[in-house]
Amino acid sequence: MKFSKKAMGISPSPTLGIDTLSKEMKAQGKDVVSFGVGEPDFDTPMYIKEAAKAAIDQGYTKYTPVPGIMELRKAIATYYRETYGLDYKAENVVVSNGAKHSLYNTFQAILDPGDEVIIISPYWVTYPELVKMASGVPVIVDAKEENAFQPDICSIEAAITSKTRAIIVNNPSNPCGNVYTRKTLEEIAQLARKYDLVIVSDEIYDVLCYQGKMTSIASVSDDAKDRTVIINGMSKSFAMTGWRMGYTLSKPELAKVMTNYQSHGSSNPSSISQYAALAALQGPKNDMKQMVTTFAKRAKLIYELLNEIPGVTCAMPEGAFYVFPNIKYAIGKNYHGIKIENSVQFAELLLKEKLVAVVPGSAFGAEGYIRLSYAISEENIKKGIGRIKDFLSELN
Amino acid sequence: MKFSKKAMGISPSPTLGIDTLSKEMKAQGKDVVSFGVGEPDFDTPMYIKEAAKAAIDQGYTKYTPVPGIMELRKAIATYYRETYGLDYKAENVVVSNGAKHSLYNTFQAILDPGDEVIIISPYWVTYPELVKMASGVPVIVDAKEENAFQPDICSIEAAITSKTRAIIVNNPSNPCGNVYTRKTLEEIAQLARKYDLVIVSDEIYDVLCYQGKMTSIASVSDDAKDRTVIINGMSKSFAMTGWRMGYTLSKPELAKVMTNYQSHGSSNPSSISQYAALAALQGPKNDMKQMVTTFAKRAKLIYELLNEIPGVTCAMPEGAFYVFPNIKYAIGKNYHGIKIENSVQFAELLLKEKLVAVVPGSAFGAEGYIRLSYAISEENIKKGIGRIKDFLSELN
Repeated sequence: MKFSKKAMGISPSPTLGIDTLSKEMKAQGKDVVSFGVGEPDFDTPMYIKEAAKAAIDQGYTKYTPVPGIMELRKAIATYYRETYGLDYKAENVVVSNGAKHSLYNTFQAILDPGDEVIIISPYWVTYPELVKMASGVPVIVDAKEENAFQPDICSIEAAITSKTRAIIVNNPSNPCGNVYTRKTLEEIAQLARKYDLVIVSDEIYDVLCYQGKMTSIASVSDDAKDRTVIINGMSKSFAMTGWRMGYTLSKPELAKVMTNYQSHGSSNPSSISQYAALAALQGPKNDMKQMVTTFAKRAKLIYELLNEIPGVTCAMPEGAFYVFPNIKYAIGKNYHGIKIENSVQFAELLLKEKLVAVVPGSAFGAEGYIRLSYAISEENIKKGIGRIKDFLSELN
Repeated sequence: MKFSKKAMGISPSPTLGIDTLSKEMKAQGKDVVSFGVGEPDFDTPMYIKEAAKAAIDQGYTKYTPVPGIMELRKAIATYYRETYGLDYKAENVVVSNGAKHSLYNTFQAILDPGDEVIIISPYWVTYPELVKMASGVPVIVDAKEENAFQPDICSIEAAITSKTRAIIVNNPSNPCGNVYTRKTLEEIAQLARKYDLVIVSDEIYDVLCYQGKMTSIASVSDDAKDRTVIINGMSKSFAMTGWRMGYTLSKPELAKVMTNYQSHGSSNPSSISQYAALAALQGPKNDMKQMVTTFAKRAKLIYELLNEIPGVTCAMPEGAFYVFPNIKYAIGKNYHGIKIENSVQFAELLLKEKLVAVVPGSAFGAEGYIRLSYAISEENIKKGIGRIKDFLSELN
């Protein structure tokens, strides 16, 4: 059987691969500490679960409108209005099967074959694949550790061509764990205006900010709002990864095109998950606040522990639940006679020898780094970082 | 904002349009009888709902493997093994956000730009759009009413070119309500072998057969099984439309490509819906059997009532929950001075003047017909067909 060139050009997710491998090792009884997971280690809050169960009992188990039930679309618009002062209405909202799916719908709606999309590196592994799935061309622009992974505007402008159609802003960032400054966002918005680009602003970690509220790029100017597609969802903010609830906020014309596309591609997302999402947005935010407080504490812990390791540098995490330490000093060194050539080999050896799962930086377009998620307990953070320290002390 | 040519080339679903319009009229207090809906008018069985609620309570609200939880994939394989004697295992199964999504994944995985897919008319409205969304070219081959809408094999063969990559078999058929004979399926399988085509067999209505069990085309030969992608889901068989659970059964190589595609495009489908689907397949089938019995009774009723109307012809429904009566004799006639030019105008007038919603045949590639769903009560069937009879009696 032959497969399409496009499908064959898509790379399997390296984060999923590491997650699967560490789960298999755990199933074999091995005491693996996994910093690989990209989901909160909290249960979905009880009031959300109860609302979902009530929806099931009440028979909300039928098709809904393709872009989501009106109440949920309104609640999402209200959330952005109240949180970021952005004037959105239900007509701006399309609910989908998760933020990935919202990103997918966006690129399918705006990219013609060969259109270029600027992606700032280190980037979430799925961005280049999503662009390729829409027959687009990912164009990578490096952000540097010495600039706290804030992208350099001149580098972005230098990468823009007549084919550039969009730029992805991931704020807070996976894998860097940083939050974009208002200045960075304003400069990106100005560039987008100058070159008439769509801004795809992935704000899936928006509530997970540890040094004050983040800025949504759509709020920096009216022009920015007009050309931005905000991507968000319930997975990270409400510990609802399994429910698959994502959404876009965009101009109504784009919302209509995406709705039409989704109507044939997958139809409405789960009716039960939609009622759960509605409850999440309308309910008390106590569980969410508690979760953010816990993540903030862990962020400080993992930052301190990592920086105690000689040779490792790691910026203070500002958002999401990732740190992205620099392990360049280990590349080229030997672990009991085995030379570590790159971050993939580093991660493989660490998992095999010390039972610690991390994702190699090369998966995010940044060699010499590793990504650690701190969506695990403080106890495991201590244990895992201790093992990394041991591992590094054995290099020569 | 500019949109992609592909997205702009996708037509909005006409069935959704009619459904929305008739719901709006109902909301205005109008006594609309809608034959437009494509979902069972039954509630999801209680044992399935209870299983979903238990899954929520037990915290199955996290990411699952992309192609679905292992137990569900095994249960799907078991269902096809026990029902159709087909030797499938978990590795053949990819679970998705509904049968539409499974079709979508399939075409994305197998079509390169310009590849042709044969679609037998009258066809489900979404097929041509799904092919176009994968940059493919839909090639329509008409099946005729006088052959009970069984496709003519010579016509199919005449439509095959060097670019033909696949053929869609929709058995039982939406909108025709017929079930393909084993002879038809064997002939299609032979053609597929001769020209090395993928068979995309949409079996979403498989349990809704009123004259004995249907044949799955994958069961007619080993070669047919190898080249068939079976599409199915929980929506129609278990009254689970809102839960969004679809799946494919295919060769493991294709399952892997689709899993990889889905991993970036939307990730796993809802964990809660997966546990509901597992319960549906493993539980007692009493509710399903009761539903099939009810549909069979309505099928007979609507068939008899329609054929009592002078000028209307309609075949006895064999499967799904649709009839597709011929109303050609009404085309060109006048309704109180308004000339009926086509099935769209027929449907519009019928809704406006007699408050009966039907889908025009042209939406399915067959002018001179209308589609009626009998997923409504016997009382409403009688009332609605009575109004259609009145409408037709007023033509001249």
